[in-house]
Amino acid sequence: IVETSLFLTDYRLFPAASYTDSSDDETSPRDKQQKNSKGSSDFCVKNIKQAEFGRREIEIAEQEMPALMALRKRAQGEKPLAGAKIVGCTHITAQTAVLMETLGALGAQCRWAACNIYSTLNEVAAALAESGFPVFAWKGESEDDFWWCIDRCVNVEGWQPNMILDDGGDLTHWIYKKYPNMFKKIKGIVEESVTGVHRLYQLSKAGKLCVPAMNVNDSVTKQKFDNLYCCRESILDGLKRTTDMMFGGKQVVVCGYGEVGKGCCAALKAMGSVVYVTEIDPICALQACMDGFRLVKLNEVIRQVDIVITCTGNKNVVTREHLDRMKNSCIVCNMGHSNTEIDVASLRTPELTWERVRSQVDHVIWPDGKRIVLLAEGRLLNLSCSTVPTFVLSITATTQALALIELYNAPEGRYKQDVYLLPKKMDEYVASLHLPTFDAHLTELTDEQAKYLGLNKNGPFKPNYYRCLGPPQNQRRLGSDELPRVQLTLASFPHPFT
Amino acid sequence: IVETSLFLTDYRLFPAASYTDSSDDETSPRDKQQKNSKGSSDFCVKNIKQAEFGRREIEIAEQEMPALMALRKRAQGEKPLAGAKIVGCTHITAQTAVLMETLGALGAQCRWAACNIYSTLNEVAAALAESGFPVFAWKGESEDDFWWCIDRCVNVEGWQPNMILDDGGDLTHWIYKKYPNMFKKIKGIVEESVTGVHRLYQLSKAGKLCVPAMNVNDSVTKQKFDNLYCCRESILDGLKRTTDMMFGGKQVVVCGYGEVGKGCCAALKAMGSVVYVTEIDPICALQACMDGFRLVKLNEVIRQVDIVITCTGNKNVVTREHLDRMKNSCIVCNMGHSNTEIDVASLRTPELTWERVRSQVDHVIWPDGKRIVLLAEGRLLNLSCSTVPTFVLSITATTQALALIELYNAPEGRYKQDVYLLPKKMDEYVASLHLPTFDAHLTELTDEQAKYLGLNKNGPFKPNYYRCLGPPQNQRRLGSDELPRVQLTLASFPHPFT
Amino acid sequence: IVETSLFLTDYRLFPAASYTDSSDDETSPRDKQQKNSKGSSDFCVKNIKQAEFGRREIEIAEQEMPALMALRKRAQGEKPLAGAKIVGCTHITAQTAVLMETLGALGAQCRWAACNIYSTLNEVAAALAESGFPVFAWKGESEDDFWWCIDRCVNVEGWQPNMILDDGGDLTHWIYKKYPNMFKKIKGIVEESVTGVHRLYQLSKAGKLCVPAMNVNDSVTKQKFDNLYCCRESILDGLKRTTDMMFGGKQVVVCGYGEVGKGCCAALKAMGSVVYVTEIDPICALQACMDGFRLVKLNEVIRQVDIVITCTGNKNVVTREHLDRMKNSCIVCNMGHSNTEIDVASLRTPELTWERVRSQVDHVIWPDGKRIVLLAEGRLLNLSCSTVPTFVLSITATTQALALIELYNAPEGRYKQDVYLLPKKMDEYVASLHLPTFDAHLTELTDEQAKYLGLNKNGPFKPNYYRCLGPPQNQRRLGSDELPRVQLTLASFPHPFT
Amino acid sequence: IVETSLFLTDYRLFPAASYTDSSDDETSPRDKQQKNSKGSSDFCVKNIKQAEFGRREIEIAEQEMPALMALRKRAQGEKPLAGAKIVGCTHITAQTAVLMETLGALGAQCRWAACNIYSTLNEVAAALAESGFPVFAWKGESEDDFWWCIDRCVNVEGWQPNMILDDGGDLTHWIYKKYPNMFKKIKGIVEESVTGVHRLYQLSKAGKLCVPAMNVNDSVTKQKFDNLYCCRESILDGLKRTTDMMFGGKQVVVCGYGEVGKGCCAALKAMGSVVYVTEIDPICALQACMDGFRLVKLNEVIRQVDIVITCTGNKNVVTREHLDRMKNSCIVCNMGHSNTEIDVASLRTPELTWERVRSQVDHVIWPDGKRIVLLAEGRLLNLSCSTVPTFVLSITATTQALALIELYNAPEGRYKQDVYLLPKKMDEYVASLHLPTFDAHLTELTDEQAKYLGLNKNGPFKPNYYRCLGPPQNQRRLGSDELPRVQLTLASFPHPFT
Repeated sequence: IVETSLFLTDYRLFPAASYTDSSDDETSPRDKQQKNSKGSSDFCVKNIKQAEFGRREIEIAEQEMPALMALRKRAQGEKPLAGAKIVGCTHITAQTAVLMETLGALGAQCRWAACNIYSTLNEVAAALAESGFPVFAWKGESEDDFWWCIDRCVNVEGWQPNMILDDGGDLTHWIYKKYPNMFKKIKGIVEESVTGVHRLYQLSKAGKLCVPAMNVNDSVTKQKFDNLYCCRESILDGLKRTTDMMFGGKQVVVCGYGEVGKGCCAALKAMGSVVYVTEIDPICALQACMDGFRLVKLNEVIRQVDIVITCTGNKNVVTREHLDRMKNSCIVCNMGHSNTEIDVASLRTPELTWERVRSQVDHVIWPDGKRIVLLAEGRLLNLSCSTVPTFVLSITATTQALALIELYNAPEGRYKQDVYLLPKKMDEYVASLHLPTFDAHLTELTDEQAKYLGLNKNGPFKPNYYRCLGPPQNQRRLGSDELPRVQLTLASFPHPFT
Repeated sequence: IVETSLFLTDYRLFPAASYTDSSDDETSPRDKQQKNSKGSSDFCVKNIKQAEFGRREIEIAEQEMPALMALRKRAQGEKPLAGAKIVGCTHITAQTAVLMETLGALGAQCRWAACNIYSTLNEVAAALAESGFPVFAWKGESEDDFWWCIDRCVNVEGWQPNMILDDGGDLTHWIYKKYPNMFKKIKGIVEESVTGVHRLYQLSKAGKLCVPAMNVNDSVTKQKFDNLYCCRESILDGLKRTTDMMFGGKQVVVCGYGEVGKGCCAALKAMGSVVYVTEIDPICALQACMDGFRLVKLNEVIRQVDIVITCTGNKNVVTREHLDRMKNSCIVCNMGHSNTEIDVASLRTPELTWERVRSQVDHVIWPDGKRIVLLAEGRLLNLSCSTVPTFVLSITATTQALALIELYNAPEGRYKQDVYLLPKKMDEYVASLHLPTFDAHLTELTDEQAKYLGLNKNGPFKPNYYRCLGPPQNQRRLGSDELPRVQLTLASFPHPFT
Repeated sequence: IVETSLFLTDYRLFPAASYTDSSDDETSPRDKQQKNSKGSSDFCVKNIKQAEFGRREIEIAEQEMPALMALRKRAQGEKPLAGAKIVGCTHITAQTAVLMETLGALGAQCRWAACNIYSTLNEVAAALAESGFPVFAWKGESEDDFWWCIDRCVNVEGWQPNMILDDGGDLTHWIYKKYPNMFKKIKGIVEESVTGVHRLYQLSKAGKLCVPAMNVNDSVTKQKFDNLYCCRESILDGLKRTTDMMFGGKQVVVCGYGEVGKGCCAALKAMGSVVYVTEIDPICALQACMDGFRLVKLNEVIRQVDIVITCTGNKNVVTREHLDRMKNSCIVCNMGHSNTEIDVASLRTPELTWERVRSQVDHVIWPDGKRIVLLAEGRLLNLSCSTVPTFVLSITATTQALALIELYNAPEGRYKQDVYLLPKKMDEYVASLHLPTFDAHLTELTDEQAKYLGLNKNGPFKPNYYRCLGPPQNQRRLGSDELPRVQLTLASFPHPFT
Repeated sequence: IVETSLFLTDYRLFPAASYTDSSDDETSPRDKQQKNSKGSSDFCVKNIKQAEFGRREIEIAEQEMPALMALRKRAQGEKPLAGAKIVGCTHITAQTAVLMETLGALGAQCRWAACNIYSTLNEVAAALAESGFPVFAWKGESEDDFWWCIDRCVNVEGWQPNMILDDGGDLTHWIYKKYPNMFKKIKGIVEESVTGVHRLYQLSKAGKLCVPAMNVNDSVTKQKFDNLYCCRESILDGLKRTTDMMFGGKQVVVCGYGEVGKGCCAALKAMGSVVYVTEIDPICALQACMDGFRLVKLNEVIRQVDIVITCTGNKNVVTREHLDRMKNSCIVCNMGHSNTEIDVASLRTPELTWERVRSQVDHVIWPDGKRIVLLAEGRLLNLSCSTVPTFVLSITATTQALALIELYNAPEGRYKQDVYLLPKKMDEYVASLHLPTFDAHLTELTDEQAKYLGLNKNGPFKPNYYRCLGPPQNQRRLGSDELPRVQLTLASFPHPFT
């Protein structure tokens, strides 16, 4: 039986406070007759009338997605996606909307469904539908709705996709299962999620991958931002929003000192917490020491800490035994991977009382009255209890757009039926498109210097195997037989500053 | 005409997500007949049935208010407030409840009203009423309700207050106006707010202060926590909750480098922002330089910054001219004092469009499409858009309790009809009561060392004139003729670690 | 018997590497016949021929003493020290030379001796003598030489001082003892050192102070720089130069969390050390907690730390018992006050072996082979093992110059026979003169803002009692009966930016 | 013509203050007849009588080289280097002595020469000779001496080396040139320096490498420590020792944001400098932005900065044009690679005056009097003007020892005639041997977790291609055809904590 992502609880929470309330409308969108102002009804959203509110959110997002806006400008002359028919399955948010409208501006036709039954912003979906995008998504879909929406995207008379943009692999799975012949015309898959990439590697290993696929999840830029820089901010945000706690003077243990752990530790240290670290890898351990953190085993500090944060990619890092020994009011949360780092299941025993005190906050109470504060039921704090900054989403969206362009335009034979990592140069290009946000001015090599270094003046500046690896979880999926096979060129994309 | 605080919009926001919803109940509490489980109806709250929910919040707060809990323990033997009849007017929150129940445990009788028409947590008020405290407060009082509640606290047959705990001065004002004779029995006033302290100094100058008053607003501990440490965290929290922005790489100008400015700068620097500082005082300016911040005039950077934060205590620091020159999407907010630091009034002109995009977030849009993001309409970001950690409130509440004890027990003649600052030793005592939270172990002087330093082993360790002064606004109110006149002793309060 | 400072071992070490070697010349300067190029022989230095080398050092120092250079420029028109006859007794360094030549440019005549028998830079003394300053000082004076030099400064036919600039009080003491009548013409004393200030307060208490004296040691600017900012850098410098140790990952305990302790802790934390703090004052202790340091008793961590640093102003903070329990290779040093914080005397017992391994570095070896690394024999690390940045000395020298100007020009009666602290405005003025070094631009209040704040546009911006107090040691000397009596005005010194 | 390293000026400076002075002894060691206390004269050092002083330094170094001391203990039973005849050519320092004596304890015979004509510590060489090591080295060798010493190590009757430990490649070069037949018995080369590794790759490319070689320069642990952590400390140390400058408030531009640049920036930011960064690689540039540094072109800030630091691995990063535009007193130094980053040659023109003001410090003076402060004549500041912490040298020495053991014990055929990088597991093992220094406790995976992650419980924990790459300079030498070919196992070295 196939595992699908639609019930995954790790979806990203978005600010909802400002949105129009449509909770009183109980009619299923599938039963509604709606048309946009141009008379089209090729979409299915909650309420097309919310389009104006969604448009405002899209406009706000555009201001923080300079790279996509720059791509639009560049593409006014050439249309690198002219003829492309992209079917997409992602979270439907203002940032996705900016991506979709960019793809449109580059010449593509798009049809879109949601990759998660909860994460759609109805207003944004309405705005897209109003602009003429066939969007099939709303907040609170049933499982049946979910697959129905995906099917509406691909099962269209007179329109057949030639590109797939997927987030989680459900769309890809659906086409494999229902319309395998469709792959004959499909030039490639761009996949963003860990789960989806994992599935693609499995298909590849099994010899069943029938088109080239691009893994955009493991690009250096995305990894560095999603992990180090984003977590540095979201650990504080997630803890504050849920508990209103003060960081100063608090004792914290961070399990794992990869990029995520480094970000969490740096942020909490800066806010005046006393931070301990646990590690299994002696090199990361030595880094923790040199950065000023006491390296301990969890057992050694579990009785004294105020907060426990897991960032390992491992499972059962915090066990019931640890939980039993924590002091009263200890906060426990997970910034790592999936929801198994804390053994939450072990807390579902009769002698413990669970009390939901706020959204995403449970008190688990021991018979003697001790209570620990469990956040997001052990799921990812940064996704559940804080928002992802638009700037980070911009990096992902730009990478997706470039990957689509490359796969669509690649000459016959450049890509086999395999999973490819992004070439270094493309990573660097995405980064360079985001520098203007910071009014940052890149230095160019002189001819003499480029020759001295043996580099091309426009990059790439680092070898392809230079990567920022995430937790072991990720590396396993990048085992030696899956080493990047990168032959991309970016001829069609001149360096942004030349 | 007297200015009252009931309409001040600077009240502190508290988490409301977890609370029972009573919005459907439109009946005014004044029109309801309610009794607690012991049969008493000497209170007026929204809904006595919410008591259980409120009790849970109080229990959570108790865990972060160790100093008050320690006071309760100490006072089990002696009852230093036996016979005290305290009338109080403060925000009604879980933390206040812990204070009130502590005063009760120390022997006092209390009657309480809210100092703000919006800030009452109905569930907490219910819990207090259920426990037998005559509380008169609910969320959403009218102005008439506000004064009616205060009056119900003081105008009681057979009960006359002998102590006042005020926050804003409205209670004090009401007694001055309506029941001036009551002051004959009143031993003293403890006042927490800037506004209330200001009023007391005015009364004192005018020769109209007829009882001793204690200014707990300007204690070192409270100032340091409210300003430096609390703002270090709340600037990040307030910006995140309102805008979901990313701090890394952002250019920020912080106006003013007092304690608040220092806290904001340190936090943003730690998160990877590029921070500029403006200052009027060359000594603070030199400190900013040594701490690694470029000292500029606002004009020099106003075109390039992403965020403008005021922390001055001054007025019109950000003028319309500055606002006109800001770049698109610039965020403007105030962490300083009152709501005049940003000249918000100047933005209320016909050519500018205001758009409320979220709670506490306005876009102000120029004719050419440029928009700036104004937070909390220029009011205090830390109070409007983030919550105040319980730990900080604990320091204030403990100080209030000690001030009440001192004034109530002071021998005849120790205090004149004047405004007093807390003695250093009391500040130190409050601090010491909070050290156990951090498992912090204080070192004691040996006899030899105490003699060498000329200090008492139990403190005070700093002279009385050692203070952490806030912005000039505050200092003005501490002009030379209002210098601390401190004659308190804490004989009745042995050093907590002896 | 009077204690003199000439044998104090806390003198500041200066870079000597670049200097001409004159160690072969064994003749006492007192026995030499020397003339400068203009034919004058009214001086006594090691070797007048080294003048050129000294001049180069003075020129280098001038570049980092912008405030004195600015004073010279301002004073080209008026000569606020015209007629002043200043006798000085300070360390003879390049920075002092810049001060002396500034005093000369302002109209003063100067005669100068060294306040320490070791600290004179012979080349600088030669350069001053060559420029016509009667200087009597060389490196390696005997005690007899020391007093002879001082005497040559004051006991001159046809020249009688009317101002004293002292550092340590020896010059003042000599005049009191030998030429008490001289005080009739002396307008005031400016004293820089803790010791000297202490003596002046004693004289004042005893009713024996017969002229006004200015305590420049306790100015905010000087204190903040000498303590927080300077120590933040010199703790690293002193440890590196003596031990070449790596800071990353090292466990350090810092005793005392005043300004010096704060500076040390911040620097070591930034370099990746794990820092523990001890404190006696609960308020400072709470600050340490909020800044992210574990507050401990020394006993609790003494076995595990790699470095022990004292910053208390107290005595016997590190006892023989602590030293016995330290682990092998533990480094022990003092950043606080005098040389009693570590009980070094207790290590002078037969069973312990002392081994001098480098200059300022002793290994003290226990019978079992354990060795601790004692720096500077427990004297001040920052003075013994690192150099004081010119910028910090510039602040002191500027303050001294302004104090001399004020005392010399003050109208009859402004100053009594007492010890005065610098007024806030003068502190602020010194600070403002140093801002251009950082290209720092001060903001000026508008008239409206000044009125709103109740401040003069040119300052002072803080009340006179706003001070940055040092360790208790210092505060004792500022007891309540010695509170600042400040009546200075700076009418003759307009605000630097107006 | 072969380039040799003996004149390279980048040798590491060591503290010399405590050493015995032998400058009066002008006799060449080659002309002296010396015997150690056991009667051997198979060595050539400056003065065998200095052995005792050298021994003390070695003992001090042993305390900071725990990993080698641990290896000695482990090897008491087995002697993994029994039968090994190692000829070495490295800097002769206390740390090298600890390495040599460890190799001896592991069973090896050693003969040693210096890799640099200036860097030998005579006392240490004497101590080694006294202990029976045939050492041929002294401070201040001539070029002829240099090759003579190397020859004395290899050209011995009845002794032929079977392992080479080289630092710079001169020893390897000498054997290639003079005794090529010797390679028949040599099992491998371990090379530490960038230059030496480069030569080996050239030999390999040319098909002339006739034994396996191990590149220990590019191990993750060494790179991370040499670059990030060591530079974080040495940039401060080098600047302080040469200029005594204050960091607070200074404006600094750091060219290059690789590991070295990151270390420099972090340190200076922490000390209160205002730091600007230049970069050519957009990914590193974006990292600089997120870390809070303004990304600029050098031109944009060159007029305003107080310090310029190069960390690029590139050449002519600071040109004469930049130098012409710097402000007076600007400090210029190089932390990157070799001595070409600053175009120092361009300053050797007649109109500029050079003034040597201290050791390693030159003032270069423009006709208008402007002077810039050039450190170490553009050579590496960290090597020329600060010392390398023993802890860092310990990591290198441990890696060298393990590489020798592996090459010596590897079964026939495991290594071809090629250059090998260290396997990840060995890197991790070196790291783990250094954790006890920090009292750091590594966590072990449970069986279940190891299985979940697909890892061996004892590591390696990261894939082999996970590396911390240095500047482009280094990467060029690691081009795709030189990718790590790692087949090592560490069977003989059980995990240190199992």
